[in-house]
Amino acid sequence: MNGRLFLVPAPLGDNPPEEVIPPYVFGQIAHVTAFAVEDIRTARRYLSRIGFRGKIDTLTFYEISEHSSMQDIEHIAEHFSEGLDMALISEAGMPAVADPGAALVALAHKAGVEVVPFPGPSSLMMALMASGMNGQCFAFAGYVPARTDARRRRLKELENRSRRNSETQILIETPYRSDALLQDILSVCEPSTKVCVAADITLPGQYIRTLTVAGWRKEGLVITKRPAVFLIYAGI
Amino acid sequence: MNGRLFLVPAPLGDNPPEEVIPPYVFGQIAHVTAFAVEDIRTARRYLSRIGFRGKIDTLTFYEISEHSSMQDIEHIAEHFSEGLDMALISEAGMPAVADPGAALVALAHKAGVEVVPFPGPSSLMMALMASGMNGQCFAFAGYVPARTDARRRRLKELENRSRRNSETQILIETPYRSDALLQDILSVCEPSTKVCVAADITLPGQYIRTLTVAGWRKEGLVITKRPAVFLIYAGI
Repeated sequence: MNGRLFLVPAPLGDNPPEEVIPPYVFGQIAHVTAFAVEDIRTARRYLSRIGFRGKIDTLTFYEISEHSSMQDIEHIAEHFSEGLDMALISEAGMPAVADPGAALVALAHKAGVEVVPFPGPSSLMMALMASGMNGQCFAFAGYVPARTDARRRRLKELENRSRRNSETQILIETPYRSDALLQDILSVCEPSTKVCVAADITLPGQYIRTLTVAGWRKEGLVITKRPAVFLIYAGI
Repeated sequence: MNGRLFLVPAPLGDNPPEEVIPPYVFGQIAHVTAFAVEDIRTARRYLSRIGFRGKIDTLTFYEISEHSSMQDIEHIAEHFSEGLDMALISEAGMPAVADPGAALVALAHKAGVEVVPFPGPSSLMMALMASGMNGQCFAFAGYVPARTDARRRRLKELENRSRRNSETQILIETPYRSDALLQDILSVCEPSTKVCVAADITLPGQYIRTLTVAGWRKEGLVITKRPAVFLIYAGI
């Protein structure tokens, strides 16, 4: 009998976990003793806060990062054959979405292991629903290129794709480049294109606003180094 | 001073709301007296379960459906200018994603109303994270066409797009056509293409499995009339 793989979300910042994840979920994983995580130190702190205080030292941690090789991840997956449940935890938000855990989930399916996702805060989904843009048709393209000319080309492509397919484009950027990204969006996109900035989602200071490019140029905005999701919509 | 617009998720089926939405969220909306909903009867039942029992008859309900005109929705948005908070509730999952509430959210932004999304179960996001497919690049195209030939053409397009962009394609279908859709996917897609079926997410009988088209053809599956999300991945 195989163990199961639980997919456990984490808060998007330093806010109390029970505000954004049902405590019922913490009960469902209370028996788990093995965790696949991106950073052991922050995972220990998180588990402490959700009911594992006092037994952290009895837990097994496996690290998965963008530098993990397929062999590393296959090694972690061997755990399943011992019949023990394991939980994959994200650093922030939903695991295996825009983070390196998906390879472990794929191996779980290959091994016939049951995969059990739990609900929690998804910055992409919460930004999408709060943007007022088309939620019937959308795409997420991850991080945009870091180099200015490649990034601007990419933004123009995304705007064109949005116009062609009436598709909301969701993008993210590392916090320290948030302001540069917004400036690039405002410089390459058409005045009528809608742009949503969703910063600090679920956190104190949450800021979510949708305006046209023309509106943003007029009003201006300094995001500073806050985590933010950007959405672009050029459809009718 | 404008009111705010709260975006409140609902369970994906008849399971207890507190299992999938943090009770903290119910506390945050306890003072709200106006609700924009798809179906007043089911909204009343849901609100009863999350703390509004005994005061349901004092609440104001506005119906938003796919048949609502822009004028209907502008009429609802007049509520904001009275300075009162309002909540938009989905029939299932996250409001304004794959449901008609997005127009109200767009009007809120136009009126400078603060939009506050809450976390909860997103069948699309939970299916994506549990699929083991690429979560760094994905697209949701909503419902596929109902007519067989148009649907098969569309599925082939989605498979090609997935291969070209290494992009996970997420699609949904009304429950009574789930089996027909799976059969169409298996008949038009390449043997090596991966297909995830995620049925009854967060509900008793939850079933989530990823196999190649060749694997599904061999194993077979009868989904019956359960709500399901389908994911296709043809990238490397």
